[in-house]
Amino acid sequence: MKSYMVKRYSSIEAYVPGEQPRDLDYVKLNTNESPFPPSPKAAEILGGGEAENLKLYPDPEGKDLRDAIAKRFDVKRENVLLGNGSDEILAFAFFAFCAGEKCVFPDISYGFYKVFAELVGAEYKEIPLGSDFKINVADYENAGATVVIANPNAPTGLALTADEVERIVKTNPDNIVVIDEAYVDFGAESAVPLTKKYDNLVVVQTYSKSRSLAGARLGFAIASSGVIDDMNKIKYSLNPYNINRLTLKIGKASIEDEAYFLMTTSKIVENRIYTTEELRRRGFYVLDSKTNFVFARSAAVPGEKLYLELKRRGVLVRHFSADRIKDFVRITIGTREQTDVLLAKTDEILKEANNG
Amino acid sequence: MKSYMVKRYSSIEAYVPGEQPRDLDYVKLNTNESPFPPSPKAAEILGGGEAENLKLYPDPEGKDLRDAIAKRFDVKRENVLLGNGSDEILAFAFFAFCAGEKCVFPDISYGFYKVFAELVGAEYKEIPLGSDFKINVADYENAGATVVIANPNAPTGLALTADEVERIVKTNPDNIVVIDEAYVDFGAESAVPLTKKYDNLVVVQTYSKSRSLAGARLGFAIASSGVIDDMNKIKYSLNPYNINRLTLKIGKASIEDEAYFLMTTSKIVENRIYTTEELRRRGFYVLDSKTNFVFARSAAVPGEKLYLELKRRGVLVRHFSADRIKDFVRITIGTREQTDVLLAKTDEILKEANNG
Repeated sequence: MKSYMVKRYSSIEAYVPGEQPRDLDYVKLNTNESPFPPSPKAAEILGGGEAENLKLYPDPEGKDLRDAIAKRFDVKRENVLLGNGSDEILAFAFFAFCAGEKCVFPDISYGFYKVFAELVGAEYKEIPLGSDFKINVADYENAGATVVIANPNAPTGLALTADEVERIVKTNPDNIVVIDEAYVDFGAESAVPLTKKYDNLVVVQTYSKSRSLAGARLGFAIASSGVIDDMNKIKYSLNPYNINRLTLKIGKASIEDEAYFLMTTSKIVENRIYTTEELRRRGFYVLDSKTNFVFARSAAVPGEKLYLELKRRGVLVRHFSADRIKDFVRITIGTREQTDVLLAKTDEILKEANNG
Repeated sequence: MKSYMVKRYSSIEAYVPGEQPRDLDYVKLNTNESPFPPSPKAAEILGGGEAENLKLYPDPEGKDLRDAIAKRFDVKRENVLLGNGSDEILAFAFFAFCAGEKCVFPDISYGFYKVFAELVGAEYKEIPLGSDFKINVADYENAGATVVIANPNAPTGLALTADEVERIVKTNPDNIVVIDEAYVDFGAESAVPLTKKYDNLVVVQTYSKSRSLAGARLGFAIASSGVIDDMNKIKYSLNPYNINRLTLKIGKASIEDEAYFLMTTSKIVENRIYTTEELRRRGFYVLDSKTNFVFARSAAVPGEKLYLELKRRGVLVRHFSADRIKDFVRITIGTREQTDVLLAKTDEILKEANNG
């Protein structure tokens, strides 16, 4: 298989952690752990028996959790890489494939891509979205650079189809294409099945949105095993024990509970439809979101003002100051009750604006 | 204050996370979290009410925990930086102060320093330990480079005094000196008080050893606020939400339980003295450790053989293949019971070697 890793890191010798064997109940005196459990005060925070085990390092390979994720996505353990949030996965990818090299991503997207590109010294180009805020697939064909795309995109909420993603992956055989699927579980098509067909595709997902675990910090990549190996070299050169023991366990239990996942994500989709309709009824321009947020522009109140007025009334939404999107706010889809508070406060603000 | 940050990163614009205000009970629709708690299957792993909160991002600034650490060490919040293990703190320091620049560290020390140096493209020099395995302080005076020293050093276990550390810090006013105190709580002198006097000193500690929390992943740095700011820029360019919610809470409870900390660390020191004496009685050369491990060489059995023979008998210790230390094994100080198993198995191996 072709290697996509940048020259600078292709021969990096990563750190080798002390062995963590599981085949025998060893007297374990090899990794300088404490023989004592953590303070009872710390253990109190956790109910179960996992508190005692916190004296031991987590499995740096995260085998059990990777197996559970592999099963869920019908891939193998060697196709899965774990990160301390998907931000860390993205960092691994930028180091492995972009350090000192070319990469491209949309001008309006997750703001961290530019930061990662700067950090690794990549020669990056931000490709403008179309006037409809859509990603123009042709802009990324034969890019001659690593491609990084959030699908669905943020903060627009707009999604490419799996066929469109495939066109980008197929026309860039010499470069890695990273598809950041942080929001894919709310109605877009995932590119995970394409990882079996294309060695150059890295799909990144997170537990922070659709699995309600932003506070546990867990993300993962699915890709061909060679590409996962390359990112692993960065992980073992940066932070081998990147996932703590509790998150490894919680992550496994969560991904195995498909019914709960389906129930909660479908409720959010339902409420997104409601929120979109209600905002449109109030004269908002709302993009067709496939995520757990909507990106909306009021005809009557500028974005920053709307953000500030909502905040004053106890509702936090996000506003971005970049020129093309400064008239918008990004609103997370919460519960129906939260949406109704948002709408009531919005009505107050619109009324004031019309009277002003 | 002088800036120590490498030119490459001095003007980096880090990622800005969505606001996480604590002053009002907002309807929080600004960071795309789920309104639902995690799967009950995942929540089962945790006893307390923290399970529900895992749907929310952790505080990226870790204010409560930093306050607790600051209180313990008699410094201010702005003097404390949190890392996902002290490895991550070290990574932040290598990026901020060594990327593309010069740094020095001992030839025999924590193996990760070399890996970090390679990762950030530092021009690094490994300074040989003395023939007694001690760090020669004069080698690091006026180094003309960032200095990274583990104190006590690993895997030797030998410590510098605070006065010796001060000589190194004082004679390198134009460079950062990183003192990695992963093992300091088992009898060595900490350099933390010196951070009030010297802007160029970064002290790194971890919860993995003396606080029995290797599985929770938590480390921290203490330094002047300007230097903490510089490392923070790297954190916000790499992984802003680096510490999960559970670890933030556990870390606070743990550092506030000074009595438990004193009890467990003094038991380990006691058992280290016992282990050292017993190994010496058996003809081992054992360095004077100030850590929770001993570094020991048998007159009768080569290091690798001892490691393998102990492993075959269910006792894991660590062996390093580097030439100068290949005759040694590094043995973690466990409970007295674990030590007695180690000694009994060692006696078997020595007996076989003498009969062989």
